Amino acid sequence: MDRARVYLDHNATSPLCPPAKAAMTAALEVFGNPSSIHREGRAARDIIETARRDIAALVGADPADIVLTSGGTEADGLAIFGLWAAAPDRPPRIATAGIEHPAVIGAAHTAVAGRGDGEVAWLATDGDGVIDGDSLAASLRLGCRLVAVGLANHELGTLQDVAAMARATRAAGAHLHVDAVQAAGKIPVDVTALGADTVAISAHKIGGPKGAGALWIRPGLDIAPTHAAGHQERERRPGTENVVGIAGFGAAARVARETCRQDMAALASLLEDGLGEIPGTRIHGRGAPRVGNTVNAGFSGVLGETLCQALDLAGFAVSTGAACTSGSVKPSAVLLAIGLSADEAKSAVRFSLGPTTTEAEIRALVAALPALVARARAV
Amino acid sequence: MDRARVYLDHNATSPLCPPAKAAMTAALEVFGNPSSIHREGRAARDIIETARRDIAALVGADPADIVLTSGGTEADGLAIFGLWAAAPDRPPRIATAGIEHPAVIGAAHTAVAGRGDGEVAWLATDGDGVIDGDSLAASLRLGCRLVAVGLANHELGTLQDVAAMARATRAAGAHLHVDAVQAAGKIPVDVTALGADTVAISAHKIGGPKGAGALWIRPGLDIAPTHAAGHQERERRPGTENVVGIAGFGAAARVARETCRQDMAALASLLEDGLGEIPGTRIHGRGAPRVGNTVNAGFSGVLGETLCQALDLAGFAVSTGAACTSGSVKPSAVLLAIGLSADEAKSAVRFSLGPTTTEAEIRALVAALPALVARARAV
Repeated sequence: MDRARVYLDHNATSPLCPPAKAAMTAALEVFGNPSSIHREGRAARDIIETARRDIAALVGADPADIVLTSGGTEADGLAIFGLWAAAPDRPPRIATAGIEHPAVIGAAHTAVAGRGDGEVAWLATDGDGVIDGDSLAASLRLGCRLVAVGLANHELGTLQDVAAMARATRAAGAHLHVDAVQAAGKIPVDVTALGADTVAISAHKIGGPKGAGALWIRPGLDIAPTHAAGHQERERRPGTENVVGIAGFGAAARVARETCRQDMAALASLLEDGLGEIPGTRIHGRGAPRVGNTVNAGFSGVLGETLCQALDLAGFAVSTGAACTSGSVKPSAVLLAIGLSADEAKSAVRFSLGPTTTEAEIRALVAALPALVARARAV
Repeated sequence: MDRARVYLDHNATSPLCPPAKAAMTAALEVFGNPSSIHREGRAARDIIETARRDIAALVGADPADIVLTSGGTEADGLAIFGLWAAAPDRPPRIATAGIEHPAVIGAAHTAVAGRGDGEVAWLATDGDGVIDGDSLAASLRLGCRLVAVGLANHELGTLQDVAAMARATRAAGAHLHVDAVQAAGKIPVDVTALGADTVAISAHKIGGPKGAGALWIRPGLDIAPTHAAGHQERERRPGTENVVGIAGFGAAARVARETCRQDMAALASLLEDGLGEIPGTRIHGRGAPRVGNTVNAGFSGVLGETLCQALDLAGFAVSTGAACTSGSVKPSAVLLAIGLSADEAKSAVRFSLGPTTTEAEIRALVAALPALVARARAV
């Protein structure tokens, strides 16, 4: 990383942690196909199974219940398509919320479109992005068979009370999928405590590489693969495994078991205090329990995109929202879903901290922001 | 690689070529999310688009028509699910052959199961694994809307006359998907000459890493994504890209443009001559045009699995068939499909050469085989 740069876009992706880099560099020397039974194959298999144990340990899971995927998006799809295919009765409905990541909402839409007889039910949230329990209860009463939500919201950092949602969902005979991509590595995540049926995580949000993710599947739950083909991942996900990426994922998971206990809230508060000094600034999601690393701020009269570009030129990497929707001219769907106007939503910038973020970096940002915001307002 | 080892399982996976390793090592230092618009994001985006140009060039394609995936299996699924979703009329049928890779056959089965109103039609092959043109014509007359075949068979090396199949398929108003995973990098592959609608390739069969593949889609052909979510790959494949893997894929594709012109048939002939000296040995697929690197041999009275294990202990890495089905006690589905008995199929061993294979390695194998076969026969 360029030493002059301040990287505050960890919710988009985090730099590789040194142990992940080392594990990947070592794995570049191991070339066998993990499915081959000869010596070269067994060496590759060992890398994968070691990584699987570390990934499982990060979320308190049994390695046998972890399915390795090409990332969080694929893990969300595998869960939602698989649970949907297993949904027994009509009217089949998938409940999710407008604040959720495109991987979750997209999978819900794709699933109902494929079967042709279902629909997506939208859960209500409050102004901080907390999903409303009554709205969930109503959806379940109306025949919802699958609920899909994020544990920590990718733009706001808002945390959901997933354990309560799991109890309600289970009592109704429905399934719950949880996207924990933005929570794992930032707060302790335990699949048993969550009580969900499936939990998705991603390597590159926790200091691992892009192109690797995992789905935890509740033991005993039989999920049909999206593509029934090779025997890999115990017939739940076909295709030769990304050995180098998985090696990095495992190493990053090992590191994240420690860093997820590191409280970033103090640095986030420092940033929020600084933002509070800038007139016309509002912190989105502030009233809810949040994962400590995410600060989403609206700057009235500013186009967030313009401010992001100015910050980039000034040495600060931040974003207006999900990288998966960047380049889009549309306002953030998350911010619209919590009740902001299009203009308010377009004024937002997301700052997301990582385990390597320093107080000096936050102080530099706080020092630079007032002038940059004033200039962006003048545009 | 252990210098004492002779690796002859290139159809399972090939060692990383040095330029791929170098490109991946360099990419480990570039951590941005390719969708982010800040400097870190743009650096990652550059890696992907450079690689895309090299991957496209390997198959004579326009980079805009290349969709990057997590591997050949996903590329097969994206093509088959996408073309199937677009298939207009009933009765919808997918035609494929019993010799095809599990990724192709599995996608065909999954597709028809998902829609509930289709079926898989099986194309006939001759004893060398060449698909019968009359069988294809009959399937097309019976309402087949999608044909999915491999260009070079993964176990036999048999090459299909895809251009002729493309003409017949197009004339019938159907689509043709070609799995070129075992052909690319071994022979020149040109998507225009093939005439197919979609062509799948994989990085790790051409000296790139596991976990990266690509689908070429004919310009103007609109294929629905398996999972409609993030905007990546121009909305055809969602999820943050495997930057490190794609960097390696691009570098390997650049190398493979040269190595695919390297004739491995002379070394393969040397091996076949040696095998001919061993009584009770038969070369499968010998009567057909084959990709030059693959020699599939049956040893009467021998369990292929036993011989593979003995070869492994003696320093030679080979396999009984597709790595994607290894560990299975079933005889090769490919060999059964070309008319072998279960016992004959179980007696087979696949030797697959790579660009780094030397004459000395083949001579060492030929010298070692007679005693190992004799011992395996005695078991």
